Amino acid sequence: MSRVDQKLEEIEETIHNEVPAGISISDVTFEGPELVIYTRDPKQFAQDGDLVRRLASKLRKRITVRPDPDVLTRPEDARDRIRSVIPDEAGVTDLDFHADTGEVVIEAEKPGLVIGRHGTTMREITQEVGWTPEVVRTPPIESSTVENVRNFLKQERDERRDILERIGRQIHREEMSDDQWVRITTLGCCREVGRAAFIVSTPETRVLVDCGDKPGAEGEVPYLQVPEALGAGASSLDAVVLTHAHLDHSALIPLLFKYGYDGPIYTTEPTRDLMGLLTLDYLDVAAKEGRTPPYDSEMVREAIKHTVPIEYGDVTDISPDIKLTLHNAGHILGSSIAHFHIGDGLYNIAFSGDIHYEDTRLFNGAVNEFPRVETLVLESTYGGRNDYQTDQEDSEEKLKEVINDTYEKGGKVLIPAFAVGRSQELMLVLEEAMRSGDIPEMPVHLDGMIWEATAIHTTYPEYLRDDLRDRIFHDDENPFLAEQFNHIDGGEEERQEVTDDDPSIILSTSGMVTGGPIMSWLEHLGSDPDSKLVFVGYQAQGTLGRRIQNGWDEIPVGNDAGRSDTMKMRMDVETVDGFSGHADRQGLENFVKTMSPRPEKVLCVHGDESSVQDLSSALYHEYNMRTFAPKNLETFRFL
Amino acid sequence: MSRVDQKLEEIEETIHNEVPAGISISDVTFEGPELVIYTRDPKQFAQDGDLVRRLASKLRKRITVRPDPDVLTRPEDARDRIRSVIPDEAGVTDLDFHADTGEVVIEAEKPGLVIGRHGTTMREITQEVGWTPEVVRTPPIESSTVENVRNFLKQERDERRDILERIGRQIHREEMSDDQWVRITTLGCCREVGRAAFIVSTPETRVLVDCGDKPGAEGEVPYLQVPEALGAGASSLDAVVLTHAHLDHSALIPLLFKYGYDGPIYTTEPTRDLMGLLTLDYLDVAAKEGRTPPYDSEMVREAIKHTVPIEYGDVTDISPDIKLTLHNAGHILGSSIAHFHIGDGLYNIAFSGDIHYEDTRLFNGAVNEFPRVETLVLESTYGGRNDYQTDQEDSEEKLKEVINDTYEKGGKVLIPAFAVGRSQELMLVLEEAMRSGDIPEMPVHLDGMIWEATAIHTTYPEYLRDDLRDRIFHDDENPFLAEQFNHIDGGEEERQEVTDDDPSIILSTSGMVTGGPIMSWLEHLGSDPDSKLVFVGYQAQGTLGRRIQNGWDEIPVGNDAGRSDTMKMRMDVETVDGFSGHADRQGLENFVKTMSPRPEKVLCVHGDESSVQDLSSALYHEYNMRTFAPKNLETFRFL
Ligand SMILES: [Zn+2]
Ligand SMILES: [Zn+2]
Ligand SMILES: [Zn+2]
Ligand SMILES: [Zn+2]
Ligand SMILES: [Zn+2]
Repeated sequence: MSRVDQKLEEIEETIHNEVPAGISISDVTFEGPELVIYTRDPKQFAQDGDLVRRLASKLRKRITVRPDPDVLTRPEDARDRIRSVIPDEAGVTDLDFHADTGEVVIEAEKPGLVIGRHGTTMREITQEVGWTPEVVRTPPIESSTVENVRNFLKQERDERRDILERIGRQIHREEMSDDQWVRITTLGCCREVGRAAFIVSTPETRVLVDCGDKPGAEGEVPYLQVPEALGAGASSLDAVVLTHAHLDHSALIPLLFKYGYDGPIYTTEPTRDLMGLLTLDYLDVAAKEGRTPPYDSEMVREAIKHTVPIEYGDVTDISPDIKLTLHNAGHILGSSIAHFHIGDGLYNIAFSGDIHYEDTRLFNGAVNEFPRVETLVLESTYGGRNDYQTDQEDSEEKLKEVINDTYEKGGKVLIPAFAVGRSQELMLVLEEAMRSGDIPEMPVHLDGMIWEATAIHTTYPEYLRDDLRDRIFHDDENPFLAEQFNHIDGGEEERQEVTDDDPSIILSTSGMVTGGPIMSWLEHLGSDPDSKLVFVGYQAQGTLGRRIQNGWDEIPVGNDAGRSDTMKMRMDVETVDGFSGHADRQGLENFVKTMSPRPEKVLCVHGDESSVQDLSSALYHEYNMRTFAPKNLETFRFL
Repeated sequence: MSRVDQKLEEIEETIHNEVPAGISISDVTFEGPELVIYTRDPKQFAQDGDLVRRLASKLRKRITVRPDPDVLTRPEDARDRIRSVIPDEAGVTDLDFHADTGEVVIEAEKPGLVIGRHGTTMREITQEVGWTPEVVRTPPIESSTVENVRNFLKQERDERRDILERIGRQIHREEMSDDQWVRITTLGCCREVGRAAFIVSTPETRVLVDCGDKPGAEGEVPYLQVPEALGAGASSLDAVVLTHAHLDHSALIPLLFKYGYDGPIYTTEPTRDLMGLLTLDYLDVAAKEGRTPPYDSEMVREAIKHTVPIEYGDVTDISPDIKLTLHNAGHILGSSIAHFHIGDGLYNIAFSGDIHYEDTRLFNGAVNEFPRVETLVLESTYGGRNDYQTDQEDSEEKLKEVINDTYEKGGKVLIPAFAVGRSQELMLVLEEAMRSGDIPEMPVHLDGMIWEATAIHTTYPEYLRDDLRDRIFHDDENPFLAEQFNHIDGGEEERQEVTDDDPSIILSTSGMVTGGPIMSWLEHLGSDPDSKLVFVGYQAQGTLGRRIQNGWDEIPVGNDAGRSDTMKMRMDVETVDGFSGHADRQGLENFVKTMSPRPEKVLCVHGDESSVQDLSSALYHEYNMRTFAPKNLETFRFL
């Protein structure tokens, strides 16, 4: 008998001793990091509201209880009884029965009302019909991404269960080594912004953290081909952890599956959906620009199929010697700080991903309290000695001034923005400014994937700032539904109309002017001296955005096939820098200074060479930590 | 046509343009790093004494010219004519004709007389018979190791030529990467003495430097199994470089072939032979102690077969972007500092191996002048702040006192010594002391492999200190042939006789009292309070030698099968520390201080934790270099 089967037998024994007589246990399996208990008496099981919690604490596992398929009520009968248990205000939009696992997926506008206080309504459903409910939110704004992901996962349910079972057995395999060490290998994102990719390794486990591309630097991908990365094959990785969906962290995750990776991707649920959206767009852009994309959309689907979503704060076994916990990073929807607890109290590493330390309109500020952390891998986008940004409040004032000025001249305000994060933050600013009369009511056009990204935000309000979450729960207060917002879905024709029309504000991707509809907007508006181009986010070296910011005034124009001409920019260029999704130098210092516990070592990454050096040196001198500004392709050993 | 064949064609073209009309070139091939030119006119080729040098400088290659097999004189005819060209005093002991390559191997007691001034005699031979002479020395003291290696290589000549041709094509393959970086990965020997193993890597090339075991720490082998080492298979290495034959650098070289390595080992010729001797002994010892050796003797033969010997100072292409030069390290016979020139002036790394900076009786001091060096990887055995050793002169005085005292008491002097290096140094000290009357004439017994190792030393006098070399060339002055020296080849019986006999000196392996005949000598002499145990070399942590040095007085005794008993030590223990083959702290500092050019970075390795830390910190503060005390399993990037 394998070690895993032996472990499962011991667990089954423990469960038998714990559950009241009369409740049968027909099977116990691992599905990913979770333990699944099948019972022929699901209703009785659900009666004891505390039983699952007791088992989970005893076994130190997350637990799902499912009815044995043999004892299920027929769906036709269950459907009405479920609806009668759930209050009408929950707004159930779909019920989907899966006889193989005894689960019923309930899609509702107000999932909280389906769950009930401390899960009482859920348990009531099981007591009533035996099925195990799983609750998802009906997107308040229709999102094709969310719908596609959900339909795809429904369709692949069988294979997914096999994948999860295999992952579960991998996680709970026997530890083989009696050696002890902990290492980080840098495959990208060192002394540069982009192509984030790190490996955390122990004698037992190899975990890849992020796998992104480098904006504005085609061909500079993470060093996946070196021996210590995928030299021994992609299957030498135990797990992949994705901090957030931005392409500089996620773009090459699907590529891993092309290389033969077949294991889990741990990330939050919104990050999974956003990764789907952004990587598919990444393929589109490549195709449009005549480049050969490194993988096709089938690989994006593989990535989604292999994603094991975890929630902020859940401690999850991802290998015999590593536990992962994701914490809010305050940067974009679903963005996480990845905390690795290695061995039994042996060592702890936190990867910041990208962080915003202060609260913003969209998100609570990044978490910086952990049970333990010895080494912090810290983003340094604004780590330079002069990278202090304007307060958002002042920035909002400045933006409003710019908008008012431009409005008075009859021009348009064009804002290149990442579809994900900064756009929604600006939408909140603009919605409030119009509501309070600080700027005139005028259309706010959303081009590129901004609308779709916004819809995804409203699907996961739990990941938004507390008060915003509450507003989204009430349709009439949902700021994203304000009538000024117009989704540009009519292509060039609609853009021409907007150009010819009265003053308005345009938010358009890509955020660093490296392609996408912003190119078309520049063509429409670039020669208009009354209009204004306003940068609100970080422009990486090598991007057109950075060049324009630095005074470049020639814009490539022409047809889609190949832009051969250039146009002289006549519109004003302005930078309003307080809206970044990144902590500025002060925010980074505050994050570290107030971090609990204080890390012993800090690796400064995800910044230009001077930024990582400045931050590394400042943290060393001011807070007396061992700090490093690693190069790509280095390996640090911590123990 | 492959890139290599294209290159060969270009080279052939150049040769045709360079050689006088009437000299035909029938083939040009790579054999390892050398270029081999076949000609149907070997005699005419040899007439122009400068032609080969001109070609070598033009092509920047080492060149061997061989006769086309079709035009060879018959060996029976050639034999006498060769003997008539070579002066009788050369002492030719064997002629061996190889028709496949047109080479004749001439073994002679005085190879210099076969070569002639600037190679004139060699060229004369070719002009006379057409064959290409290759000269080797007849060992002045018969060495079974040298004889076995030579016979084996003779027997495997065909396969060896295939191997060399494959290596040659590998070296001259096309460069594939346009990336530029240089890295060192530490697989052992960091913050410890033993299991030396480092990888130098570029986008193009991966070279393993040394592959040793750790004395006194069974099971602690280099981290070969991590992905960045052999994770992608042993064939992912382009080359192995061996600095010297000590087992902490060489023991696991044969293991690489068991793992599927099939490439070259670059090292000096004496190191190749000593490696054969020491690794075969390593297998013997393991077998005697009932351990399973990690490989068998077949793998030692593979290692020898794949060795490409190079001489001090020869600049050798070992891959498309790396040139290797070995320099005298002053440590043991054939020991080298390995200098890597990477790219076209891109970066230079020197691995010190083990060094002795001052001249000793046996060797010239370590070379520390190089064309360029940016990073030095420096041994730190005696790098600790207090690791200053007595001058060898004072040590010799002390040793002579100890010997005289013990002689007067009628006791024996027992010296555990490495077979290779320290033993020969002591032999020179003792021979001179007896010759000059400083100590009484008495037998010096050599046990373990010391005799054999000494024989190997006399085979390669070019690797010994200048004046010693000259003495060896004259039989009557060869100090190793002095009559006091007695080879213990009668086993326990002879040891008992020596024990019962008059005062004498015994040199015996192993040098750190970890096994070998020294164990038996301790059993014979350990209880004799009139005898003395004298340590003259470094005793690593965890070895019995170190424990005895620290006051431990229980010696394991018993039968070969399993030592179960212990015996109380009653003999005096003395340490005379000036004979080390290693530079002491002062020597290490002098090596670095006077090094030309000054390296930018120094990695301190091959020392206990405190030694590497002390040395690293001292070099940083005193000489203002960036210094490191790496851990095992780290990767440093330099460019
Ligand atoms: Zn980001
Ligand atoms: Zn980022
Ligand atoms: Zn032969
Ligand atoms: Zn050595
Ligand atoms: Zn050594």
